[in-house]
Amino acid sequence: MSEKMKAAVMKGIGKIDIEELPIPIPRDEEVLIRIKSVGVCGSDVHYFVEGKIGDYVVKPPFILGHECSGEVVEVGSRVKNLRPGDRVTMEPGIPCGKCEFCRSGRYNLCPDVVFWATPPIDGTFCEYVTHPAYFTYPIASSVSFEEAALVEPLSVGFYAVRRAQVEPGQVALILGSGPIGLVTLEVLLARGITEVIAVDISPLRLEKARELGARYTVNAKADDLKERVMEITRGRGVDVVFETAGSVVTTQMTVELVRKGGKAVLIGLPSVARVDFDVIKVIDKELDVLGIFRYANTYKGCVDLLNAGKVNLATLITHRFPLEKAQEALQFAHEHKMDAIKVVVNVGS
Amino acid sequence: MSEKMKAAVMKGIGKIDIEELPIPIPRDEEVLIRIKSVGVCGSDVHYFVEGKIGDYVVKPPFILGHECSGEVVEVGSRVKNLRPGDRVTMEPGIPCGKCEFCRSGRYNLCPDVVFWATPPIDGTFCEYVTHPAYFTYPIASSVSFEEAALVEPLSVGFYAVRRAQVEPGQVALILGSGPIGLVTLEVLLARGITEVIAVDISPLRLEKARELGARYTVNAKADDLKERVMEITRGRGVDVVFETAGSVVTTQMTVELVRKGGKAVLIGLPSVARVDFDVIKVIDKELDVLGIFRYANTYKGCVDLLNAGKVNLATLITHRFPLEKAQEALQFAHEHKMDAIKVVVNVGS
Amino acid sequence: MSEKMKAAVMKGIGKIDIEELPIPIPRDEEVLIRIKSVGVCGSDVHYFVEGKIGDYVVKPPFILGHECSGEVVEVGSRVKNLRPGDRVTMEPGIPCGKCEFCRSGRYNLCPDVVFWATPPIDGTFCEYVTHPAYFTYPIASSVSFEEAALVEPLSVGFYAVRRAQVEPGQVALILGSGPIGLVTLEVLLARGITEVIAVDISPLRLEKARELGARYTVNAKADDLKERVMEITRGRGVDVVFETAGSVVTTQMTVELVRKGGKAVLIGLPSVARVDFDVIKVIDKELDVLGIFRYANTYKGCVDLLNAGKVNLATLITHRFPLEKAQEALQFAHEHKMDAIKVVVNVGS
Amino acid sequence: MSEKMKAAVMKGIGKIDIEELPIPIPRDEEVLIRIKSVGVCGSDVHYFVEGKIGDYVVKPPFILGHECSGEVVEVGSRVKNLRPGDRVTMEPGIPCGKCEFCRSGRYNLCPDVVFWATPPIDGTFCEYVTHPAYFTYPIASSVSFEEAALVEPLSVGFYAVRRAQVEPGQVALILGSGPIGLVTLEVLLARGITEVIAVDISPLRLEKARELGARYTVNAKADDLKERVMEITRGRGVDVVFETAGSVVTTQMTVELVRKGGKAVLIGLPSVARVDFDVIKVIDKELDVLGIFRYANTYKGCVDLLNAGKVNLATLITHRFPLEKAQEALQFAHEHKMDAIKVVVNVGS
Repeated sequence: MSEKMKAAVMKGIGKIDIEELPIPIPRDEEVLIRIKSVGVCGSDVHYFVEGKIGDYVVKPPFILGHECSGEVVEVGSRVKNLRPGDRVTMEPGIPCGKCEFCRSGRYNLCPDVVFWATPPIDGTFCEYVTHPAYFTYPIASSVSFEEAALVEPLSVGFYAVRRAQVEPGQVALILGSGPIGLVTLEVLLARGITEVIAVDISPLRLEKARELGARYTVNAKADDLKERVMEITRGRGVDVVFETAGSVVTTQMTVELVRKGGKAVLIGLPSVARVDFDVIKVIDKELDVLGIFRYANTYKGCVDLLNAGKVNLATLITHRFPLEKAQEALQFAHEHKMDAIKVVVNVGS
Repeated sequence: MSEKMKAAVMKGIGKIDIEELPIPIPRDEEVLIRIKSVGVCGSDVHYFVEGKIGDYVVKPPFILGHECSGEVVEVGSRVKNLRPGDRVTMEPGIPCGKCEFCRSGRYNLCPDVVFWATPPIDGTFCEYVTHPAYFTYPIASSVSFEEAALVEPLSVGFYAVRRAQVEPGQVALILGSGPIGLVTLEVLLARGITEVIAVDISPLRLEKARELGARYTVNAKADDLKERVMEITRGRGVDVVFETAGSVVTTQMTVELVRKGGKAVLIGLPSVARVDFDVIKVIDKELDVLGIFRYANTYKGCVDLLNAGKVNLATLITHRFPLEKAQEALQFAHEHKMDAIKVVVNVGS
Repeated sequence: MSEKMKAAVMKGIGKIDIEELPIPIPRDEEVLIRIKSVGVCGSDVHYFVEGKIGDYVVKPPFILGHECSGEVVEVGSRVKNLRPGDRVTMEPGIPCGKCEFCRSGRYNLCPDVVFWATPPIDGTFCEYVTHPAYFTYPIASSVSFEEAALVEPLSVGFYAVRRAQVEPGQVALILGSGPIGLVTLEVLLARGITEVIAVDISPLRLEKARELGARYTVNAKADDLKERVMEITRGRGVDVVFETAGSVVTTQMTVELVRKGGKAVLIGLPSVARVDFDVIKVIDKELDVLGIFRYANTYKGCVDLLNAGKVNLATLITHRFPLEKAQEALQFAHEHKMDAIKVVVNVGS
Repeated sequence: MSEKMKAAVMKGIGKIDIEELPIPIPRDEEVLIRIKSVGVCGSDVHYFVEGKIGDYVVKPPFILGHECSGEVVEVGSRVKNLRPGDRVTMEPGIPCGKCEFCRSGRYNLCPDVVFWATPPIDGTFCEYVTHPAYFTYPIASSVSFEEAALVEPLSVGFYAVRRAQVEPGQVALILGSGPIGLVTLEVLLARGITEVIAVDISPLRLEKARELGARYTVNAKADDLKERVMEITRGRGVDVVFETAGSVVTTQMTVELVRKGGKAVLIGLPSVARVDFDVIKVIDKELDVLGIFRYANTYKGCVDLLNAGKVNLATLITHRFPLEKAQEALQFAHEHKMDAIKVVVNVGS
């Protein structure tokens, strides 16, 4: 094996160079993985364009990318569940395992998590990474590397649906039909929720939602959303709303559209912190408003759904770039938010 | 409308006569329903053959049957959600709505429930019944009356799966692949649980389980069940076991086959009350052993799954009889437990 | 028994007359109760002063009052759990027992609930009422009628604490130390939560909170609340916040003061519907924001706590009036929000 | 500091010698603790007398003891939450932090847990131990070291009560009033469950239960337990039973005494694995039978209760021995199961 690898290194805002870096060496509990496919996440684009997200500031050189898959090429001395040649997807955040959050099963809130492409931790737009074996999941031979990379965003939808405890018989509404809205839709359908209403203002995205199986789609630009929802639910409102659009107005709508005793699940971050929010509805309707931050304990379930063909991640991929064109990939994703769904960077042949 | 109807009336053990009875009159909150299809339940067969189940003793004349569907022909003055002509399935037990169980959402435990075909309440092997509108559910035009009748047993599986809180990523085992085992399987699959192991000793039933989508089937007569389960789960055991066979040995096996922290869901009543049970495993593995008694709040979810084609109830029906041959239907079901799956009685044309 | 009774009848805004009305007659499942004590609730004051709350409009003549206790004087033919002479407290809202909310244990959301003193249903500022026996709870001889009347507000705190699933080891914060804040405090203490921070701007109320056992009290006027909370929790934030003050600023503070993965429980209705709310904190901290609307399945627990002396409701009562002075009682409560805690109307000797 | 310490080393069945061993050296995340007090657990006695529990076999030399408290004397370089001089109690089992159980918050089921006094891991009957700082909890100055040592058994009761989700208003029954039964009682009382029935056959233990606040005590030798329970609960049965006696007959009784929809919590290990168990009651009553294996996420809550004086652990201690007499302590505990409650070994002055 060559001791050097290629990596797409962010050198400044909007600028990524391909550089040669040493191939990392796996520790006893780790595996060395040849990266095959990396999805471009909204956070990657944000770091690429703005140089920071909230308190997390990129200090170049820095490697983006955390939605990824690859092939195991070497295993550490204490690794038992994996072998070279295994095709895998990797959970990108390694929590401490010791704090109150980790101990109680909510490791996504661990303050000491080491998460790919969250500064200062380098990500996976490169040829090789090491990773703990216990956060590395084998995939079936029927699953492509591109699909496997998208287990990461799928996890967000999986986690949101679990946290909302939706079940068949309920009506779910998804505000925003971008990648996160669509994977939430797919998880709902895979879990037997037959009544899903997908909302967006992009005809492309709504078409994709229909194709994936949304019972109803609403173009919020063309139609009166509240009227449509009340028509569909005969004035009752939906059991649960998933807000994935991250806009002020959709965040406000959640509590309008949900029934008494229902749930509003907030996933998308609005661009402004403070939203004029109808808290009286939260009280009078006795709602649960639930925030979603990443995910925990989702990879096994997501991989099972993917292996069994219960979700279709391939259909989300609209554009592909090679590693060498990582900069173009990020730039493209930035410029085509409404007409691309998922952009993927493929590494090697 | 004729004021008399036909009813299949149990006159003694093993004896059912067709008699003429007055058509009942719906109260303000009720609807009058022309019965179309009635499934034969194990409890019907038990009453027919033994005359009692535990403390519930049949005092003839008595009408059996509670898994049913039909068409609304008249509605009471306060009924708003239904109209004549609606095709419906009916939840057979009406709870009091006032006791501690009803108030806390576990109305299946209501001591004052009025449940069809549980002595002394007559059931539905007849041409017309009245029923509260709020426990009567419209079905889609794509669903047959036969399928709609089987929402009742489907509800048992639906409720058991909900109570166990199974989710994709988990491995489920079903002991017994009769009607209840198979509907449990269908609910698990509809809810995205891809790894299901179905067990029985009847090749017919296992074939049906495979056809419905069980990832693994085990013939417990031919194979060593524990060995197979540990092979499939790599020594870990399954996340949840559903016991639907009602035999002593399968009840005992539950705690052997489940992983640490897993769940054993008991649905099938063993013929003897006391089972030599490994309670040390319950403690050492920190299991949840969960009893299932009927169901609550399941009909809407079941009807949604059925309407959307996410479950296949038609395939469970192996034999059909007209109302006039209700006695033969029950006798047949009694004599063909292993080579019939579901026997249905159809009423009218 | 006299066939007429006295009642305090609201004849218009701010105007209550004592009138003679027929004593009601209990139905089969009901009891007739001689009212002994009725607490003045904020909603009573609101109706008295404003004539309405949201869509609920008083059409005089109307009787206010729903926090009450009394003595059973007659029982209907089907009542088994109560006898004349029993000292009781009554749950004021009778749900339908049939709708989706009732069936699933959330009967507080029943759209057809019949709730005392919510227009057009008359309340209990009178000498006699009838009530379903199954919503009437006997109290111990050690408990006074005044305390028993306050089981109703206690229920709100009980329900909020249950919904938040607080347990010993957690730190709870209560914003607002009026009646609802104080009963929430009492329930927390009774359930073993030792670390409770009570907040208010009234020294009287804070003194009461201290006396009841709050580990910390903060005068939000005198101190920087966030600073104090972070000092007490060493920068971590509290596990759960109960908002009972109903002000915009306290509602906004909830998400500031709670730790990652914590809960913000909203009980107090702000005077304006829309609050500038930091939803990014809800997402980034992955919070549960939970609305509270009345209560369900709380009376038995509250009565147990009261009977066993685990809560002290007597200390909340700061002012008393006879039924004949119901108008003065409501006027007083209206004018002394900050220096009265609980005003009670006593009926008869 | 001396570099040698005294330790009570088990050299064979029934034989413990005091030996000199090196004082361990804390790693970066660990603290060095001078042991002050160690409770004698039933498992210690079992290992001492039988040399094994199930598959866990003592290979001498071996050190028993895991219920302990002490004083921090040195802290590792990365320890921030503790300082020399801190008085502490220690959670004795350190899980791996990586397996499926650890990740989902059930670290008590971690197969790789390192647990004091579970072969081959030495325990704490010695003068010094090292321990991870994050599993070491400071106690208030008002709490004695003896009490602090008993946070470990208290944790078992705390965990069982949490797992059963008992709340005020429910009736709880405790079968067995030894140390685990009594700490379960104390946790129930501290959490506001006023209706607790304690059962035993030892007058001493029942006296202790009464003294601690059990509303009812039943001597199962003198009285008919089922009759008494049905009398107390008016034929309904209790909401939850905690089985701590570990006998066949009490394990069998659980499902008799609990109401429909109730919970039977199994803590005590019966001497024989297989118990003739009425599984039909589990199904017909729709029970939850819940095993308890140690505990997880309990120490903070237990320490809070202890610091606040909400539980009384001192009263459980009936006998004391110095470290030098560890052998006598274990022998005494073995021989006085019925007339001792808790035996404690104190270390140093």
